[in-house]
Amino acid sequence: MNSIDVQSSSVVGRERIRFVLVRTSHPGNIGAAARAIRTMGFDRLGLVAPHKFPHPDAVAMASGANGVLEDATIAPALVDAVADCTLVLGCTARARAVQLEELTPREAAARALAASAIGPVAIVFGNERTGLENDELMSCHAAVRIPSMEDFPSLNLAQAVQVLAYELRLAMLAQIPQTADTSKSDPPATAEQLEHLFGHLAQMLDDIDFHKGRSPVTIMKRLRRLFLHAGLDQREVRILRGIFDDAQRMARLARSRCS
Amino acid sequence: MNSIDVQSSSVVGRERIRFVLVRTSHPGNIGAAARAIRTMGFDRLGLVAPHKFPHPDAVAMASGANGVLEDATIAPALVDAVADCTLVLGCTARARAVQLEELTPREAAARALAASAIGPVAIVFGNERTGLENDELMSCHAAVRIPSMEDFPSLNLAQAVQVLAYELRLAMLAQIPQTADTSKSDPPATAEQLEHLFGHLAQMLDDIDFHKGRSPVTIMKRLRRLFLHAGLDQREVRILRGIFDDAQRMARLARSRCS
Repeated sequence: MNSIDVQSSSVVGRERIRFVLVRTSHPGNIGAAARAIRTMGFDRLGLVAPHKFPHPDAVAMASGANGVLEDATIAPALVDAVADCTLVLGCTARARAVQLEELTPREAAARALAASAIGPVAIVFGNERTGLENDELMSCHAAVRIPSMEDFPSLNLAQAVQVLAYELRLAMLAQIPQTADTSKSDPPATAEQLEHLFGHLAQMLDDIDFHKGRSPVTIMKRLRRLFLHAGLDQREVRILRGIFDDAQRMARLARSRCS
Repeated sequence: MNSIDVQSSSVVGRERIRFVLVRTSHPGNIGAAARAIRTMGFDRLGLVAPHKFPHPDAVAMASGANGVLEDATIAPALVDAVADCTLVLGCTARARAVQLEELTPREAAARALAASAIGPVAIVFGNERTGLENDELMSCHAAVRIPSMEDFPSLNLAQAVQVLAYELRLAMLAQIPQTADTSKSDPPATAEQLEHLFGHLAQMLDDIDFHKGRSPVTIMKRLRRLFLHAGLDQREVRILRGIFDDAQRMARLARSRCS
């Protein structure tokens, strides 16, 4: 790979990596995060329901990274902000009761860079005090945990952004030609397609009376993780949904004749 | 090295690594730096001629890392703050006209950790606007450069501290025997269990009339790859087979009533 190729592929990777801040309380942190990603060569910032934005504190803390703030996209909910993404990674300070694969920042950077060769990637950060809610983590394909101290785990928001942006920059600089999995020829499923798949799966399980009075929540968490880990492409999503359709058809038939 | 040795050497390493902030203008940055090093397991902070300290902004930004602030040492000049150190590393945003070896943060962390086995080590950060003066860099044994963008190189002070503290923490954790991925607590599925799963899946697809005259071979290859890629554990195999059972039950019911 010559230097021109490296340059152009870096640009593609950079443009496809989006830092998403969810329900940020302090506009100063949005500005500091903009500065952090800008120093590391990124410029895509997504904001989900920011408490105050635009705001002079954001501009002050951006310290010249105004372009990042001006181009920031604003969405009402996380699902909207990541709908087009092929990979969504959620940063969390603690292991939660959400069944998500847990990555180190370095692992997350490698995976994000590889995925960015195919489509948009989101790195998601929660509110300063409360982090990501469980339903927001459910929109993520894997969790990223910065290896902080157990007795003092909470990094400042912009500093967590800095650590992830730093690891992403190192991964890009290393530019070990990231080969995407070429055994798959179909485009990867988007976050939106995966959510529809999970919704369909939940409905199907209900229809075939899988739960039998047990709570569906734990099983669905487990199944989400299973399918997220599988790295589904769009054709596989179609196949699975075809299977769900047929199982539902049988359930309807069984019910209509049994009743 | 047994685990007790590792533990005690980590403690020694932590206590021997000192973060030194030189002529810091904003006390909030001192607090944010205290928080940053505390999250990564460090607590030694040295201040050289801080413009304002102690200060309520420092306490506010420390966000609970008060002990680090209370124990901070204050010196009039850098030479005093690092007099007892066996290794002094100075962070600088740009290559300067000082003939110092230049390290990446990762190289610096490895070297600092190795040196901390012998004596105190200082990681030095300059003023927010002007960085380290040339005479201050002369007190350093090597320079550390965070690989920021050439057109926007300047990290916020506390964020630069965060990056170095993060790399030091990774270097320390690398010394401690890592535990395996605990996000999955069930043993992985055996090859035999997987073959039974695929046999069950093929039968279920037949029962719900998924193929509708198409060849099942291609679809089964695809589904095998999908589930093999997911790295199923034994519990997940049981869950999937439970779903297949229920879909088959519905199909039997539908058929018995339809025929």
